[in-house]
Amino acid sequence: MPRILILGAGFGGLFAAKKLARVDADVIVVDRHNYHLFQPLLYQVATAGLPPSDIAWPIRSILSRQKNTSVLLDEVVDIDVGRREVILQNESVAFDYLIVATGSTHSYFGHEDWATIAPGLKSIDDATHIRRRILTAFERAEMTENDEEKKRLLRFVIVGGGPTGVELAGTIAELAHHTLAADFRRIDPRSATITLVEAGPRLLPHLHESLSDYARQSLQRLGVEVRLGTPVSHCDEEGVTIDGDRIATATVIWAAGVAASPVGRWLDEEIDNAGRIIVRPDLSISSDRNIFVIGDAALVRGAAGAPVPGIAPAAKQQGRFVADVIAKRIAGKPAAQTFHYRHAGHLATIGRRSAVIEFSHYKMKGWLAWWIWGIAHIYFLVGVPSPLLISIRWLWEYITYGRGARLITGGEQSD
Amino acid sequence: MPRILILGAGFGGLFAAKKLARVDADVIVVDRHNYHLFQPLLYQVATAGLPPSDIAWPIRSILSRQKNTSVLLDEVVDIDVGRREVILQNESVAFDYLIVATGSTHSYFGHEDWATIAPGLKSIDDATHIRRRILTAFERAEMTENDEEKKRLLRFVIVGGGPTGVELAGTIAELAHHTLAADFRRIDPRSATITLVEAGPRLLPHLHESLSDYARQSLQRLGVEVRLGTPVSHCDEEGVTIDGDRIATATVIWAAGVAASPVGRWLDEEIDNAGRIIVRPDLSISSDRNIFVIGDAALVRGAAGAPVPGIAPAAKQQGRFVADVIAKRIAGKPAAQTFHYRHAGHLATIGRRSAVIEFSHYKMKGWLAWWIWGIAHIYFLVGVPSPLLISIRWLWEYITYGRGARLITGGEQSD
Repeated sequence: MPRILILGAGFGGLFAAKKLARVDADVIVVDRHNYHLFQPLLYQVATAGLPPSDIAWPIRSILSRQKNTSVLLDEVVDIDVGRREVILQNESVAFDYLIVATGSTHSYFGHEDWATIAPGLKSIDDATHIRRRILTAFERAEMTENDEEKKRLLRFVIVGGGPTGVELAGTIAELAHHTLAADFRRIDPRSATITLVEAGPRLLPHLHESLSDYARQSLQRLGVEVRLGTPVSHCDEEGVTIDGDRIATATVIWAAGVAASPVGRWLDEEIDNAGRIIVRPDLSISSDRNIFVIGDAALVRGAAGAPVPGIAPAAKQQGRFVADVIAKRIAGKPAAQTFHYRHAGHLATIGRRSAVIEFSHYKMKGWLAWWIWGIAHIYFLVGVPSPLLISIRWLWEYITYGRGARLITGGEQSD
Repeated sequence: MPRILILGAGFGGLFAAKKLARVDADVIVVDRHNYHLFQPLLYQVATAGLPPSDIAWPIRSILSRQKNTSVLLDEVVDIDVGRREVILQNESVAFDYLIVATGSTHSYFGHEDWATIAPGLKSIDDATHIRRRILTAFERAEMTENDEEKKRLLRFVIVGGGPTGVELAGTIAELAHHTLAADFRRIDPRSATITLVEAGPRLLPHLHESLSDYARQSLQRLGVEVRLGTPVSHCDEEGVTIDGDRIATATVIWAAGVAASPVGRWLDEEIDNAGRIIVRPDLSISSDRNIFVIGDAALVRGAAGAPVPGIAPAAKQQGRFVADVIAKRIAGKPAAQTFHYRHAGHLATIGRRSAVIEFSHYKMKGWLAWWIWGIAHIYFLVGVPSPLLISIRWLWEYITYGRGARLITGGEQSD
């Protein structure tokens, strides 16, 4: 029986695996975490809105009824293309077909030493780490007698004006100005300063300019200071330097850059400047038609030549496409030669009342967009019973302005 | 204005603070965690049934409307009884009245080096650590080729036959034999061995003997091996020695002993062999009538001379009693001289279908007891909206045998 190996159980890998349920093959899914993560809502965990297990589900239980599929909790070390074998930390696994769906990681543009100072948001552990940092900053501000230090602790800097940066800035502003407002006695959390820094000229650069403007205005209404065209030039324990300006802060969150996982090195293939493999139209690599790269690890060009965006629906479509190609080839039937991306739209939310939506030429913003955003996300959640729980939780938080998952766990208080 | 300082925001400290809401005093609550924990359900977090934030709520938000009360996230270093001052890690706080409600911690009976090998269950971090250990053992068993090692990884030993040990053993058995049964391909989780070890002659020694027998039989029906009268004599990375018998295991959980927090040293007072302060009938200490010790940190004798049990209702009653004594004294009114414990009953659950209940002379066991146990726990939950969410989650898990919070987070995979 042919063996299909899938590296990564994000949207691309998981949807490929599901599509292969009835194929007469031995399917193996490898991931370094035991959970599939609904990444679009990860910022909610980082800002204490949702508990981790509401947006992450064990890969094994998602795939447990799929008898041809097994799951390995392991990490990729290298790929031996010639021998068609993947070297994992605990073992090596040979394959007939390989789907590389290992996604992306933070990029600090050569300043990798900033990683501990300005954590990024990719995994559950990242999210609970950021949650701890934010909540601990308020606690330490309550304790200090030093006014300078108090100001530094109540300053939050988010680097990067894409969807994650916008969502984080809006939510942290609401956390400080509403949720925590009555909880402290020596400090007023409403005096916290939230700064969103973007190197480029506007927020949400993948959307129409009118929506970028709307997002900026909405954030400013929430009390967020938005600084455009200002790259970060330096970053240390005491603060950041932005465009020559020194900002003293204890909490910097990195939402600025992503780089593909080290697929170029593993596969010895040509990559673009974001580290993505330049794949063929059927998403296979140039040196081996049985090896496919999908999702954030691949540079795929759409109809007009523009790269397919690094969003969940694109990864899902690619996962299903590749699974179908492999299934057809195993069955000896002609397979599709070219992946065609169908763009459904872009969504981004700004706090708990407004969002922006762009469906091809149709644009939308405001509270109705927020409700559409919420319903779309609940609809797309893979697991059960989370949608029901998330709906109830959100409705509750919407009414009370509360955030239920405000736990400082792990690490040290002084972290 | 007199200052009332409360150390610890468990059941005792929190209920004292709530009772002091309308007293004309400056109330300060100190805890080393930012959350109040509903400890009776902590085993559910350790076994992946509930996410942490369903059973823990920020102390600040519970007390935020109580204007006379502030909260400090800090840890007690020492107490200066003579100067009426508590030395915390970050500052020192003077008091007029002090309520010490710092609870208890694990006791390894002189083998403190076993703590890293056999973790106990007292905090959220303990619970997620144990959850990671249990889930990782199954993952490593799936990966190993060595049959001996596989057997060792699929063996779980719980030390201590009190309520926590019984609850953990029953739930881990269900996790292995039902929830995870279909999730693995190389191992059969149903072959896992769960052993509950108790040094004394029976389980749940605080209950009637017939209920102890019932608990043992119920656990055995769930596939738990129950070993009574067998103390643990040795414990290391490779396994435990019980009554001369060597058991190879990768996962040992300690539910055997508790010791009070170091109150004796802080207050320089007489303690019993569990480290508890022997308090006066009004729960104050012998050297200062303005210092009270309550909950697991105090040895309080009931009507018949027997110690008041270390359970949540007892701590709550003591918290309320002491708050009332202080309030009366501040108001210049006569205060009660003697704390009277009203025993409501004991509850313990064994897996998801049976429980034992003892209300004074009335005994109950089986599925109806389980439903009463569940409703009682939801009823006693402090926070909102958790009861609703927990109810829905439990109902769902009851129907599906699923456990939604099966995330391996924090630490290393090889942990």
